[in-house]
Amino acid sequence: MIEPKTLPGFMELLPQDQILFNKMKDIIRKNYESYGFWPLDTPVLESSEVLLAKAGGETEKQIYSFSKGDSNLCMRFDLTVPLAKYVAANFNNLAFPFARYQIGKVYRGEKPQKGRFREFYQCDIDVIGKDKLSLYYDAEIPSIMYKIFKELDIGDFTIFVSNRKILLGLIESLNLENISIDILRLVDKIGKIGEENFVQTLKLDYQIPEEKVKSLLNFLQIKGTVEEQISKLESLNIENEQFKIGVKELKLVTECIKVFGVDEKNFNINLSIARGLDYYTGTVYETFLNGYEKLGSICSGGRFENLAGYYTNEKLPGVGMSIGLTRLFYQLKENNLLKSQQTTNANVIVIPMGDTMNESINISNMLRDNGINNTVYLEEAKFKQKIAFANKCGIKYAVFVGEDEIKNHYFTVKNLFSFTQSQVNKDDLIKIIKNN
Amino acid sequence: MIEPKTLPGFMELLPQDQILFNKMKDIIRKNYESYGFWPLDTPVLESSEVLLAKAGGETEKQIYSFSKGDSNLCMRFDLTVPLAKYVAANFNNLAFPFARYQIGKVYRGEKPQKGRFREFYQCDIDVIGKDKLSLYYDAEIPSIMYKIFKELDIGDFTIFVSNRKILLGLIESLNLENISIDILRLVDKIGKIGEENFVQTLKLDYQIPEEKVKSLLNFLQIKGTVEEQISKLESLNIENEQFKIGVKELKLVTECIKVFGVDEKNFNINLSIARGLDYYTGTVYETFLNGYEKLGSICSGGRFENLAGYYTNEKLPGVGMSIGLTRLFYQLKENNLLKSQQTTNANVIVIPMGDTMNESINISNMLRDNGINNTVYLEEAKFKQKIAFANKCGIKYAVFVGEDEIKNHYFTVKNLFSFTQSQVNKDDLIKIIKNN
Repeated sequence: MIEPKTLPGFMELLPQDQILFNKMKDIIRKNYESYGFWPLDTPVLESSEVLLAKAGGETEKQIYSFSKGDSNLCMRFDLTVPLAKYVAANFNNLAFPFARYQIGKVYRGEKPQKGRFREFYQCDIDVIGKDKLSLYYDAEIPSIMYKIFKELDIGDFTIFVSNRKILLGLIESLNLENISIDILRLVDKIGKIGEENFVQTLKLDYQIPEEKVKSLLNFLQIKGTVEEQISKLESLNIENEQFKIGVKELKLVTECIKVFGVDEKNFNINLSIARGLDYYTGTVYETFLNGYEKLGSICSGGRFENLAGYYTNEKLPGVGMSIGLTRLFYQLKENNLLKSQQTTNANVIVIPMGDTMNESINISNMLRDNGINNTVYLEEAKFKQKIAFANKCGIKYAVFVGEDEIKNHYFTVKNLFSFTQSQVNKDDLIKIIKNN
Repeated sequence: MIEPKTLPGFMELLPQDQILFNKMKDIIRKNYESYGFWPLDTPVLESSEVLLAKAGGETEKQIYSFSKGDSNLCMRFDLTVPLAKYVAANFNNLAFPFARYQIGKVYRGEKPQKGRFREFYQCDIDVIGKDKLSLYYDAEIPSIMYKIFKELDIGDFTIFVSNRKILLGLIESLNLENISIDILRLVDKIGKIGEENFVQTLKLDYQIPEEKVKSLLNFLQIKGTVEEQISKLESLNIENEQFKIGVKELKLVTECIKVFGVDEKNFNINLSIARGLDYYTGTVYETFLNGYEKLGSICSGGRFENLAGYYTNEKLPGVGMSIGLTRLFYQLKENNLLKSQQTTNANVIVIPMGDTMNESINISNMLRDNGINNTVYLEEAKFKQKIAFANKCGIKYAVFVGEDEIKNHYFTVKNLFSFTQSQVNKDDLIKIIKNN
């Protein structure tokens, strides 16, 4: 006998939870499609040569790679590299700007720990331009995410936007480009280490003069509404081209996000977003659940200069965001943020009482023809067992089919939650079930 | 520069085809759920010890397995072994009969050849009983498949049913049990090798006496309607308990399939189905597209005695069927059997004419609020380019937003397929798009 265990770091849900998970996935997909994004479904396995063209460092260590026959294979660790491969390979068949979504599992052999997964769903949207891509797409992408988080109904959230050119321009204006990566890394950690440590590290470890450290800190302390932050940025009078372009882009993008219908409560500027050290080149995004900031960003992304430089000479700028659904689901469940919803695929069970199996199947067919998902209890069992089954499944309505019901052409339907039972005709049966 | 190529044996579709593929997948899922089947989504990776508990022979050679750290890992090669693990592991949390579906990718490192895939979708349904499982489930499962193939609208099809007890009982009655596996293998190939070769092989290679070979052949030549075949089987007067039970089961299952609403045109008995040599123990199924029998069975399955004997002492009989969607899709496309359908997620494009970006976004929002998927062309481009984009995407309606439209509160909508253009109010715009 072998113990039937699932590997650590792999999420495997009970059926009721799986339904909740799928509902979230469906909402994400539906919204992506409502903006006309094309679906992609690239393979989980790719040749190592292709998939590792760009990888390196921490990511590469985590990759599941192996050989089979004379092929070196990798399991994908994100959906961006496969997108780059896809766009380069199918360049002539695609219409640009190419807007695609992909919802699929990716694999990272991390050390298993609470809330980290080795197999997890990413739900990506990206728009890829040919040579150029309008900044309006930088506004459309977060608006789609806004719609999704509204519909997911998991509490208040804020989508934060910034533009990396601003911080890089500021660093340039302070003549600190040579340590810009170190500064970005410290900015990324400022929430964790605190401002005091941030200042001390720059002063002592990097020997940065006090007034420059102050400039950086002043910048990072900019808070307020979108308009207030933009006007503070403009009033800093930083004489740097990159800085100015960044502010202009951020202004346009945040103005346009409103046009796309995003409520001002649900987005803001956060100038300390510094993610993706060598990947993002303009707009960057992070999303937090209000009051649960410690969970980290639940949906991130940004603008990149060139998607597929390793595979093609075509210049392919893009912008995208991604929801890490497996981790998000886990966190919502851990924090009791999953609203209780219907967690059965069929809300009705048809239960034969006596020798009425065929008639029960007919009624089940009739309900299904009327758009009502349902199941018939086809096993021989005692009444008590049948009801216990329905209760364990969380089914709301039982339709009992006895000989009297058949002879006298009526239906007995019981609400298993409220214990109310009624005898009704066909139309009322359908009405009762559909209205609840 | 690295060539952006996808591995041989891995299906990667262009966006339009991906939409068609997803529509098929959605139809399958919707029908599974309409019968109340629970969704499962087990990991692609499992520990080798668990996954290979039962495997052997050809399958084991094809498995993608590797080590990472101190774990031996396998990519799943079907969805049945993961189901067995899942049911054994979660036994106390499940309500039996446990009806589940799983739609997911599985992996087999076969030699790549036309129409064979190394990564492919399986769409499984199974009902698992605790200790026992009613034969009615053997009738429900193919009825669900019937509904699916009807809705997929891929041409006439026939679901064939048999019961392995019948053939095994006949072999027993002829005292040929010692070579029953060889006979089953030959029966499985009879369509390919022909009856003459079947007879000669049994006579010459296996030294089976003529009258026994004749009995086998007579049995396999039984044709006709369901009722005719059942009555011929009964009239054979085979004195064997297993044979009799098999006929009785087949009779009940085929009668009940009709009760579940399956058209008699779309199912029949085929006594030469002998699939799954050591796995299936009762009812067996195969499904063929009429006129395309050479494609092989597109949906198969059967009844098994015990799902998870390697993982638990609980006796778990079950019955299930599976659609190999990747292969089916490939074959339908190769044979031009895919009906042309809408292949965009958004059937409408909103096109700004002049400086009307914000108004165009507003109109896009309004259409989406009315349940109409659409995309706005946000890139700066010449009119011709915008139309070329819409055409390449296969979008049907363009809504042009110029200054006159905004000033005078009307909408210009063009059917890009028929080239008809009209100026309408909001309600008519929605009506035109929705009615087409």
